[in-house]
Amino acid sequence: MGKIEEQALQLHKDLVGKIEIVSKVELNSAYDLSLAYTPGVAESCKDIAENSEAVYEQTARGNMVAVVTDGTAVLGLGDIGPMAAMPVMEGKCALFKKFAGVDAFPLCLATKDVDEIVKVVKALEPTFGGINLEDIAAPRCFEIEERLRKELDIPVFHDDQHGTAIVVLSALLNALRVVKKDIAAIKLVINGAGSAGIAIAKLLLKAGVQHISLVSLEGVVCEGEAWMNPAQEEIAKLTNRDKIQGTLPDIISGADVFIGVSGPGALTGELVRMMNQDAIVLAMANPTPEIFPEEALAAGAKVVGTGRSDYPNQVNNVLAFPGIFRGALDVRATDVTEEMKLAAAYAIANIISDEELSPNYVIPNPLDTRVVPAVAEAVAKAAIAAGVAHVSKCVQH
Amino acid sequence: MGKIEEQALQLHKDLVGKIEIVSKVELNSAYDLSLAYTPGVAESCKDIAENSEAVYEQTARGNMVAVVTDGTAVLGLGDIGPMAAMPVMEGKCALFKKFAGVDAFPLCLATKDVDEIVKVVKALEPTFGGINLEDIAAPRCFEIEERLRKELDIPVFHDDQHGTAIVVLSALLNALRVVKKDIAAIKLVINGAGSAGIAIAKLLLKAGVQHISLVSLEGVVCEGEAWMNPAQEEIAKLTNRDKIQGTLPDIISGADVFIGVSGPGALTGELVRMMNQDAIVLAMANPTPEIFPEEALAAGAKVVGTGRSDYPNQVNNVLAFPGIFRGALDVRATDVTEEMKLAAAYAIANIISDEELSPNYVIPNPLDTRVVPAVAEAVAKAAIAAGVAHVSKCVQH
Repeated sequence: MGKIEEQALQLHKDLVGKIEIVSKVELNSAYDLSLAYTPGVAESCKDIAENSEAVYEQTARGNMVAVVTDGTAVLGLGDIGPMAAMPVMEGKCALFKKFAGVDAFPLCLATKDVDEIVKVVKALEPTFGGINLEDIAAPRCFEIEERLRKELDIPVFHDDQHGTAIVVLSALLNALRVVKKDIAAIKLVINGAGSAGIAIAKLLLKAGVQHISLVSLEGVVCEGEAWMNPAQEEIAKLTNRDKIQGTLPDIISGADVFIGVSGPGALTGELVRMMNQDAIVLAMANPTPEIFPEEALAAGAKVVGTGRSDYPNQVNNVLAFPGIFRGALDVRATDVTEEMKLAAAYAIANIISDEELSPNYVIPNPLDTRVVPAVAEAVAKAAIAAGVAHVSKCVQH
Repeated sequence: MGKIEEQALQLHKDLVGKIEIVSKVELNSAYDLSLAYTPGVAESCKDIAENSEAVYEQTARGNMVAVVTDGTAVLGLGDIGPMAAMPVMEGKCALFKKFAGVDAFPLCLATKDVDEIVKVVKALEPTFGGINLEDIAAPRCFEIEERLRKELDIPVFHDDQHGTAIVVLSALLNALRVVKKDIAAIKLVINGAGSAGIAIAKLLLKAGVQHISLVSLEGVVCEGEAWMNPAQEEIAKLTNRDKIQGTLPDIISGADVFIGVSGPGALTGELVRMMNQDAIVLAMANPTPEIFPEEALAAGAKVVGTGRSDYPNQVNNVLAFPGIFRGALDVRATDVTEEMKLAAAYAIANIISDEELSPNYVIPNPLDTRVVPAVAEAVAKAAIAAGVAHVSKCVQH
């Protein structure tokens, strides 16, 4: 174990839980109890029973997000189960509060059955203002999110798909500012055709990228290939319009952008040299990227990002999910639409001014305090414009 | 609306939620993030994946209780639904933290279906160290608790039944000390044969009361009566051994103890005068008791308790549930057994010394700081003795 690993483990043992639930109310006298609990509490209950909107004005619901997992795709560790997933979910909840003032609670489920997961989350809807799906393996994550988005009146957001896609798009937008290329003209390769890769492809298409190809371990995603799953078949219709078959070397030639959501070492200097001039490389495999920045730059790449905090341009979901839920909760959005995701990506990108922008600075620092308010405002406005907002200004939490 | 009601409503509007979720971990630097979240968090995940016991040492689970309701029997308000139940559940969670340092989270479920509720709670087991069922209507509450107790490895406790029963037993024990009567010799009437009345009867039988009768709106619970539900049929076999039929006046004559979990005004001075000398009256209908203390005392009762904070001897569940879960969590009990409930009741009763004891002081004040540690210790010891404890000393939260 390295130093960080040892210290992290010790931290978890010292804390015995990274979140706690605290009372916001005084409970020091019989009178305090009579207001916060019986008999006084009945007035708030009656108020909500008469007008369900009051639940947003008198309870924590409107600021409460469930971080839901079945523990099947945790970090790079895979299907380690719901209990072993808890440290990640607690960490996410801690980040939600720290970065966006959102109350978030981890729900680690002892079932992998799509119907059961949907039923459980539906049953919990009265308790929460939003649902953040986390570390659920593909392809179940697609169906779970799709069904919950349809069946719930609160926003449902699978962060591994859309949070990643949003931050990738913001990085791409700024990298294109650096290399002065037109988004509609670039040729882009996504290495990895799982849930993150497909979500990135969908959002980039919405943002105006026209030439996208995805590459999986089985080969280039291409209409008609027999090995594809339904999600890959769907994205195949929208990508790789030249119907190129083969593997990464067959598709990388002349590409302007490489986006890696695959595994360590999947990209080589040789392949980077086959790319177009001023290539953009986002190599997000963690902790070992598809290619290390030094090697990519030496091979001619102009802008390089990774998932690591010890290199420039860290693609980190914490830039997206806190502000997205803050904005969605603020206007009581019923959904997180494509427009809201695009708005979030533009808001993150626009944090960096023309003066600040450089090949080593296309993505804001995860701790940059300008990010969350900007994302939240943009997402809230987009929700209102898309007609999925319940209110134009929220109760302050 | 009275003054308390107005102030309570205003408090709920001012707070917008009585609980919040806070981070226990520093998140001020990239290094902080690398320990609490990626990549460091993976060490804790791997540790738990290898040894599930570590979830109790490295996450909040071991100190986390779900307060679960379907909103069907909220206070005296009835079936007001899961959202309107939220203020009560949040209040309970605030009390859990304040009185016992237990992290508690409200789960208000959008289903009344027994199978679904059981499934939802089962799916959530990896997240919680205990389940507090709350304000679920009879007879579904019986089946839900019974099935969850069987199917889960964590303690499940329906507070409306057992919390009430425990505090009633502690009040009875001390009232008997005052009037110097033998628990095995008393004749006791419970007015109300719903979930609370039946739970009280069961626990008092365990504690050594031999002559108990229950009275419902339909009449005295008696073996062979056609109107009884299954729970009443079961308790009928253990109570009313003289098989008296009729209503309250037919059974109250010569009774030593009246326990009311019924409705306002159900007991009259006239009926109290029919009771035995030094009668004990616990009139817990809320906010208007079965009989007001002044009237009961005037009619000859020696010890009178109610559910109200503005009279002596308040029967208040807050005396029981925080210490019960504190004790159960401390030794990672897999159940809350009858022995643990009895131990809790004796611990509450024994808070009051012979010197302190008086007709107006048979129940400790809900704010008495001696109560929770005493209950927790007694419950933990009882759990160990009953063989349902996983550890003899808990991780400190």
